Amino acid sequence: MTTTTLETPVEHPHVTPEHILQIGSGFWASKTLLSAVELGVFSELARQPATASELRERLHLHERSARDFFDALVALGFLERVDGRYTNTPATDLFLDRAKPSYIGGLLEMFNARLYGFWGSLTDGLRTGQPQNEIKTGGNFFATLYAQPDKLREFMHAMTGLSMGAAQAIARQFPWQRYQTFADLGTAEGGLPVQVALAHPHLTGIGFDLPAVGPIFDEYVRGFGLADRLEFQAGDFFNDPLPRVDVLTMGHVLHDWSPLEKRQLIARAFEALPPGGALIVYESIIDDDRRSNVFGLLMSLNMLIESPEGADYTGAECRAWLLEAGFREAYVEALVGPDAMVVGLK
Amino acid sequence: MTTTTLETPVEHPHVTPEHILQIGSGFWASKTLLSAVELGVFSELARQPATASELRERLHLHERSARDFFDALVALGFLERVDGRYTNTPATDLFLDRAKPSYIGGLLEMFNARLYGFWGSLTDGLRTGQPQNEIKTGGNFFATLYAQPDKLREFMHAMTGLSMGAAQAIARQFPWQRYQTFADLGTAEGGLPVQVALAHPHLTGIGFDLPAVGPIFDEYVRGFGLADRLEFQAGDFFNDPLPRVDVLTMGHVLHDWSPLEKRQLIARAFEALPPGGALIVYESIIDDDRRSNVFGLLMSLNMLIESPEGADYTGAECRAWLLEAGFREAYVEALVGPDAMVVGLK
Repeated sequence: MTTTTLETPVEHPHVTPEHILQIGSGFWASKTLLSAVELGVFSELARQPATASELRERLHLHERSARDFFDALVALGFLERVDGRYTNTPATDLFLDRAKPSYIGGLLEMFNARLYGFWGSLTDGLRTGQPQNEIKTGGNFFATLYAQPDKLREFMHAMTGLSMGAAQAIARQFPWQRYQTFADLGTAEGGLPVQVALAHPHLTGIGFDLPAVGPIFDEYVRGFGLADRLEFQAGDFFNDPLPRVDVLTMGHVLHDWSPLEKRQLIARAFEALPPGGALIVYESIIDDDRRSNVFGLLMSLNMLIESPEGADYTGAECRAWLLEAGFREAYVEALVGPDAMVVGLK
Repeated sequence: MTTTTLETPVEHPHVTPEHILQIGSGFWASKTLLSAVELGVFSELARQPATASELRERLHLHERSARDFFDALVALGFLERVDGRYTNTPATDLFLDRAKPSYIGGLLEMFNARLYGFWGSLTDGLRTGQPQNEIKTGGNFFATLYAQPDKLREFMHAMTGLSMGAAQAIARQFPWQRYQTFADLGTAEGGLPVQVALAHPHLTGIGFDLPAVGPIFDEYVRGFGLADRLEFQAGDFFNDPLPRVDVLTMGHVLHDWSPLEKRQLIARAFEALPPGGALIVYESIIDDDRRSNVFGLLMSLNMLIESPEGADYTGAECRAWLLEAGFREAYVEALVGPDAMVVGLK
């Protein structure tokens, strides 16, 4: 041990451990928010603003750390506090109040109940290449979820909230005027079909997903008065015939599957489309240089945790798969945030 | 469910879920860095830059997700990649290479092996007020750590790296020219005494801590050629006589203890000081309005996880304790980042 190397900030005045420490302790802020969603902090405050002691009692928290918890949420930008009364911010009021249809907390509840713990085994996943979720102990989260209609509805609704920005961008950016019909494969609640149909009154569309999803899709679509133009078709996109339409879309689908299965799904889409038809693949597609889309790269590690062989991929990789499947042209286009779409023209 | 509330981005164009999702998924980035430290990514690359396949083999990782892992570290700013070869950034090379004395990864290793999992029980802690670490199962991390000299040295060295900025700020900002002697209570490796002694050659000082720390302190101090001015004194700051010096310092100490114990420690310091003496308390002290020091508030939740009754506190609270103990004057002064000091003048 020498004197010089120990005086690091003097020797390297611009090199600080700040970023390392901020990300390294980032699970503190993350888990604080996830616990707040679990405990219903935002739903309680949406009903009525409260002092620290009122809120503590309504949530049945111990007095030791309740104020630190609430004030940490203030400092993190998730609550406001005026004259000792806590209220939601506009964003937490809109997205984290369970009573509002705009609630996306279902996803954070799932992060809290499942992924936070499973990510604790990331190192094992990296060493073995094996998923680190319920599969390890013989369980299957999605099978369980699909067997519980209320939970499934809430979860799918959270996914709609998450994909809303991308769905609206696709509705705006893709040349829908050239087409008459479309189908969304793995549609869940129908977030994408609804946004596309709202923006383009000449289109009719199909939401394609497993049978359990049907009632959820139908209810959501009826809420927008779109039942005359959007319908549900039950099916398994690996084994059942795909809808015969001008445009097929697949969002947050391909990254669940192995390279071979990805190509199979793309080939099935190609076969189902008419000449002149188009396939739109979208999710948090990794930038070709694999150095800027943090969320896309971390999502790919999440696929390690969650699936036997899934992984995210770059736009260039997806474009190559589309051309290999027979599409005459394929291009990548940014949507919003970490999301992009890859379009194949038959 | 109504149409209007579902079209949230249209109705509330400036309200997005982005911040909620970024913090809510923040444990992904955090755990990715912690796994990289655990696996020795930065220590390997400090020895020699490597391609993805070389690095994967050296670390014994499965091929499935190795590149995603490395490229996520690039995107997060912890690695660089040029022509397919990965290297550390200046910061990860300095702070996360185990072979360098500037290594602070010991703290992140502890986060990875202990706190990430224990924070998974934050909700239980908030409901019960009980710690959520080894105490729950009858263990005691610090007792175990103190029984392992090598682990203790590495951990204390990580703490030194973390406190370096604050120690240097205290060396600069406090009017040391008015005093001749000082002692640091709970000194660990002696990070603060070394920085103060380096900056002020007229001072002599004492590092006060439990007996097991003595050899670690002595080695660290010798590395700076300061053994003639800094000495170790073994003791328990609740039960043994405190050093008789002009200035006492306590860093990252008070937040471990209950309100009563905090006052006891302050009272013991007051009694030990001569008239004209000073006490410096420093750590990530919460801002008086409890709304801007995110790290201080989250650290207080970490004290919930880690201790039976500990909590962080505001500068105003600490100042009041000092005045109550008898100090004639007390003031709060910012140091660097989330750290501040509270000074009491007897």
